Amino acid sequence: MSRYSDRTGPIKLGMVGGGQGAFIGGVHRIASRIDGHYQLVAGALSSTPEKAQASGRELGLADDRIYSDFEEMARTEAARDDGIEAVAIVTPNHMHAAAATAFLRVGIHVICDKPLTATMDDANALAAEVEKADALFVLTHNYTGYPMIRQAREMVANGDLGKLRVVQVEYPQDWLAEDMPDVKQAQWRTDPERSGAGGATGDIGTHAIHLARYVTGLEIDRLAADLDAFVPGRKVDDNAHVLLRYSGGAKGMLWCSQVAVGHENALRLRVFGEKGGLEWYQEEPNRLWHTPFGEPKRLLTRNGAGASEASTRVSRIPGGHPEGYLEGFANIYTEAAHAITAHRTGATPPAGVHFPGIDDGMFGVRFVAACVTSSKDDAAWVGLG
Amino acid sequence: MSRYSDRTGPIKLGMVGGGQGAFIGGVHRIASRIDGHYQLVAGALSSTPEKAQASGRELGLADDRIYSDFEEMARTEAARDDGIEAVAIVTPNHMHAAAATAFLRVGIHVICDKPLTATMDDANALAAEVEKADALFVLTHNYTGYPMIRQAREMVANGDLGKLRVVQVEYPQDWLAEDMPDVKQAQWRTDPERSGAGGATGDIGTHAIHLARYVTGLEIDRLAADLDAFVPGRKVDDNAHVLLRYSGGAKGMLWCSQVAVGHENALRLRVFGEKGGLEWYQEEPNRLWHTPFGEPKRLLTRNGAGASEASTRVSRIPGGHPEGYLEGFANIYTEAAHAITAHRTGATPPAGVHFPGIDDGMFGVRFVAACVTSSKDDAAWVGLG
Amino acid sequence: MSRYSDRTGPIKLGMVGGGQGAFIGGVHRIASRIDGHYQLVAGALSSTPEKAQASGRELGLADDRIYSDFEEMARTEAARDDGIEAVAIVTPNHMHAAAATAFLRVGIHVICDKPLTATMDDANALAAEVEKADALFVLTHNYTGYPMIRQAREMVANGDLGKLRVVQVEYPQDWLAEDMPDVKQAQWRTDPERSGAGGATGDIGTHAIHLARYVTGLEIDRLAADLDAFVPGRKVDDNAHVLLRYSGGAKGMLWCSQVAVGHENALRLRVFGEKGGLEWYQEEPNRLWHTPFGEPKRLLTRNGAGASEASTRVSRIPGGHPEGYLEGFANIYTEAAHAITAHRTGATPPAGVHFPGIDDGMFGVRFVAACVTSSKDDAAWVGLG
Amino acid sequence: MSRYSDRTGPIKLGMVGGGQGAFIGGVHRIASRIDGHYQLVAGALSSTPEKAQASGRELGLADDRIYSDFEEMARTEAARDDGIEAVAIVTPNHMHAAAATAFLRVGIHVICDKPLTATMDDANALAAEVEKADALFVLTHNYTGYPMIRQAREMVANGDLGKLRVVQVEYPQDWLAEDMPDVKQAQWRTDPERSGAGGATGDIGTHAIHLARYVTGLEIDRLAADLDAFVPGRKVDDNAHVLLRYSGGAKGMLWCSQVAVGHENALRLRVFGEKGGLEWYQEEPNRLWHTPFGEPKRLLTRNGAGASEASTRVSRIPGGHPEGYLEGFANIYTEAAHAITAHRTGATPPAGVHFPGIDDGMFGVRFVAACVTSSKDDAAWVGLG
Repeated sequence: MSRYSDRTGPIKLGMVGGGQGAFIGGVHRIASRIDGHYQLVAGALSSTPEKAQASGRELGLADDRIYSDFEEMARTEAARDDGIEAVAIVTPNHMHAAAATAFLRVGIHVICDKPLTATMDDANALAAEVEKADALFVLTHNYTGYPMIRQAREMVANGDLGKLRVVQVEYPQDWLAEDMPDVKQAQWRTDPERSGAGGATGDIGTHAIHLARYVTGLEIDRLAADLDAFVPGRKVDDNAHVLLRYSGGAKGMLWCSQVAVGHENALRLRVFGEKGGLEWYQEEPNRLWHTPFGEPKRLLTRNGAGASEASTRVSRIPGGHPEGYLEGFANIYTEAAHAITAHRTGATPPAGVHFPGIDDGMFGVRFVAACVTSSKDDAAWVGLG
Repeated sequence: MSRYSDRTGPIKLGMVGGGQGAFIGGVHRIASRIDGHYQLVAGALSSTPEKAQASGRELGLADDRIYSDFEEMARTEAARDDGIEAVAIVTPNHMHAAAATAFLRVGIHVICDKPLTATMDDANALAAEVEKADALFVLTHNYTGYPMIRQAREMVANGDLGKLRVVQVEYPQDWLAEDMPDVKQAQWRTDPERSGAGGATGDIGTHAIHLARYVTGLEIDRLAADLDAFVPGRKVDDNAHVLLRYSGGAKGMLWCSQVAVGHENALRLRVFGEKGGLEWYQEEPNRLWHTPFGEPKRLLTRNGAGASEASTRVSRIPGGHPEGYLEGFANIYTEAAHAITAHRTGATPPAGVHFPGIDDGMFGVRFVAACVTSSKDDAAWVGLG
Repeated sequence: MSRYSDRTGPIKLGMVGGGQGAFIGGVHRIASRIDGHYQLVAGALSSTPEKAQASGRELGLADDRIYSDFEEMARTEAARDDGIEAVAIVTPNHMHAAAATAFLRVGIHVICDKPLTATMDDANALAAEVEKADALFVLTHNYTGYPMIRQAREMVANGDLGKLRVVQVEYPQDWLAEDMPDVKQAQWRTDPERSGAGGATGDIGTHAIHLARYVTGLEIDRLAADLDAFVPGRKVDDNAHVLLRYSGGAKGMLWCSQVAVGHENALRLRVFGEKGGLEWYQEEPNRLWHTPFGEPKRLLTRNGAGASEASTRVSRIPGGHPEGYLEGFANIYTEAAHAITAHRTGATPPAGVHFPGIDDGMFGVRFVAACVTSSKDDAAWVGLG
Repeated sequence: MSRYSDRTGPIKLGMVGGGQGAFIGGVHRIASRIDGHYQLVAGALSSTPEKAQASGRELGLADDRIYSDFEEMARTEAARDDGIEAVAIVTPNHMHAAAATAFLRVGIHVICDKPLTATMDDANALAAEVEKADALFVLTHNYTGYPMIRQAREMVANGDLGKLRVVQVEYPQDWLAEDMPDVKQAQWRTDPERSGAGGATGDIGTHAIHLARYVTGLEIDRLAADLDAFVPGRKVDDNAHVLLRYSGGAKGMLWCSQVAVGHENALRLRVFGEKGGLEWYQEEPNRLWHTPFGEPKRLLTRNGAGASEASTRVSRIPGGHPEGYLEGFANIYTEAAHAITAHRTGATPPAGVHFPGIDDGMFGVRFVAACVTSSKDDAAWVGLG
């Protein structure tokens, strides 16, 4: 029996990281609120006590549930009758493993930002913890929450594209085209101690490759990566070109960049099979372009004509009223909520519920490691290990 | 002193209408949750007791705060120490006035869906109630919550376009291209008893004309409207062509349609002045196109390069991560929350806070009435009355 | 028997107007060359002898076939064994009728730029000449030469859209947003003596309304027009808003403007019927968007998947290799060439050959006159006369 | 003194290849006609005499200038007083060298389709012929004729983008997604005997890489290529993924594919430097997107606001009236015509005139060879040789 077997209603949520000045913490909080499945009641929003206090009060947390030490938070919350049932981990990457471990060990479900960890050792250790925990582990590869991505995956799985041949995925940005010594977000994301060995590779490349894998179901056989740090003094890559060979013979390319001037968050996936092609673009996420070979290109829209169960199940409003990044992110939270709620009583979650987990996280860390290894060896072909 | 002078934290919210099967109620609920300023605690979600109960329980309302009669709800909630501070009214149009009145009279702030009312008499009566109430009245013309619309308005006000000449606004849809006897949304929206004399005109034309007025600040001098009901048996217009003459000499056109096959919610505004032009499209709301005369067209993006204070103030996430319809809607709720919170102590809301109110509602009702009058008189020129 | 019954090979072509500094003359010359059906051998390129000489020599005309008087050119060429078989008339509008008449009377085919004439009297007179001439009269409403417009027309005629309900056409430009006293093109096009009573209405409104009529086959029952001259001192309209009522019950709007900052030649047509919708945009002319009601929008491309005989017949190169304005214009010339060649022997032109003629020209002149009349009477409803 | 020193007026042109059923021959003919600089008077349109006759007559060639043997054509035309001054070579790739050589040796200018040759040996031999010939050699890498590509090149050269970092170029098509045994175009283009060792690489990859080089001025240091033939039985690549390392440190990717379902001729170039980014797309060729770092993206249009001398010099009509593939192709012909005309008298061509030549051809052949070599060696890094 779950320790939360008597809970009903919204899931009490805690948060580690995400204090004032952070970006992704706010995103997680909104995502947790959109569908009403969570209630934020505790947080170790910063390891600096003053900042933790200020941040917690700003969010309306009770004073006794504002922590500056996530270990203490895990112990204390686990001991409360009304303690948190789940925790969102939104720290820089290097702290994911320790924080997640603390909560998993006391049976609190973990919703963790990506990439999984900054190092492979941490990833392995965390995977072992997840394996033995009586708690769920959710990784917020949020782009897989977009309804039309769900539909794309379903179409591939249904064979609408036939056997896949080519997968092109790219994620260009430009916000790091110059050195940004005064921007906190830029600092830790370009510091290998905190972000891991991959820069763009870890921050956005993991999103891109996860998206490609999620939609196509293809596994990487080998990759060859050419990584660059174009901005002088940068210690991690800010541009990566990767050739991909998939098991089964499909080929692909991944390009991610943080110096591609003119691009904001231009994640784009294109999948081509013997019978058809699909295109999707994160900045216009409600649209999925489908071309059956030899026929006109078709515009499939979220909750519009051509939308399937896979996309409508995670949609809220009519076609033509755009849902965005936050709704896609919220879909991960809501899928997790369905699983957490089912977990209370040992029930099976509703049909179709799924979300990225530890395997996806391991995949991302292996991908970054493989890219770094390959690039150091002059873009030699390497497997994912 | 406000009766809510001792309140802190989230605003306790009630809802009238929005039971199972409704569309806009769910939108209001999400919009109220996104920024965490509201907590839904009571509802008269349906006038059918069983449905009210089922709907309320689904939303987690306490049994004693589920009502089937909004009058009773207003009385009861006003008498509770922990009663609602604001109510969202999301019924069909013909019930807006009575429901809003019930709450305004007991000092509960009203957040009302548009159009204001189904009739001019109701509108006038409601305006009188708003005038004398010690409560705020907010009308959810949600498209004015979009950040880039805020910026467009600011640019016009700043004179970036020079003196305005031409305003083109359109809102085509296609969901009513056929008769839909089995769809609840279609039923009441095409029933003049419940929706008012305007069909497309009231449902989406009011949004379009409000958007044009909000961005340009221009007032209509006269209009000439040609309304049609193309679907056999339809009792209200499903297509409207309107010529607009603005005070000061600008001219414009409005087209709204529910039979324009191939359009979902294709609200589009274009404004042209002596010095520049602007274009905005609801289905890609994070983009605003600006052309200074004689220079290349520029793409301004939400929280991206070229974004101004007017848009960033109501933005949440970085450029390139699309915010959508729900975030725009939430901005109206959040603006209202700032005003409601300030109202507790008689404080002035933060700089820049604004939202549509009773005047905007009266404008919309007058617009529909003028369109109907003009169209009956062979598209004669009429003022707004 | 035609006087050209013994001719074979390219059609010997003359030109009236189109000397140095003109715009549309060069377009006609390229259009006549693209498919190799014409050979320019004579011209009255200017009424100023020096300019006529210089322009003619630049184009490689023989000295004895360079004229400054179109009457003399008509007489002389008609008398030569190797005289021109057709003439392109590319003068300002007020000279179309006289020039066309001179050539028609001697049996030389006329290819005339639009609008037909500057006045209704001229139009009537010219129509009478065409009626009695043994020569073809072709009006270069070039937008109807675009392949995807041909396909749109065919689809409407085939009933793919069902009974038509709404037709939206617009043609915004911005090149006349300011007074341009030094630009020759701007001068005559805003001079009612040379362009006629319509400014934007005549120059681009006639194109737009012709396009709508061509594609839909609908005839205007009545229109109501609101014309403006926004630029101080301008003597003809530079912006027109027109409501349209078609025979059979369809409704429409036309907007044309030369002050819409941010638009180059943004001619756009949208047609909506009971069963489907079509959209086409001149700046991306190889694409036609088709939505069958209830199905996803489809992108039909020139010579691509979904292209029909009507469009492929007038296409040259594979889909995805854009054909443009000049190819569309050339299609009018080539259609005319098929008819002229057939006329030599009294043969029937190949199936499908068609082009705008005197009726289309009369329609355009009536349209401008109706707009001007309506606008002077406060946008009263008027027929086309 | 040139043997054509007494020529004036249009250049007499011959053609080798391009008989009935061919595609690119027709394109060359239109391109040669658009600006009136050429007159087609002779042809060896096929090596099959009957087909050569039929094709030549259809084009209006005199019987004595219809050949089936290009050697004979070269000899005969060189001996005529009114012989051709230039020849267009539009055969399958394996015949380019021999045909070009025949004409170069008799002093007739050659305008040759790409890729230069099917083999490196042929390329070297041809280069030696060009070196010693008193005749021009023009290679129709037509995409460099697009005005906005000219402007992009100028902007890069001017330093508008700063030092370049990343170059992404791709050319996906889908017309060979299935085996097409009955389509002549498909046959020879997938036959290594006639097309050379590269399939997609030679046919469209050479276009893409030439475009990237033309615009950026960067030279390839090394490349790593992964080539595939996805269609069963295909003997040449139909998809190529190529990593690029440029001299000076920039990196890039090239993807070309003939199996990318949903793409027609989607050649796209993106260039990113320290100070800005550019994007261009062949299917919308009149637009060039420019983002100065930190500023809004700008839409530069052909002959519109922001157009520079480099693009306006090769433009014909106003902005917003699209010029297309044929006009871009014609620009190569017209640039060549300026050079050929200047060559008559030994004059210097007008400022700015330039076109692809033998060096560009050698580059393309080396590129294909390097891709094939690299791919056979498991995508090892190779130089261009």
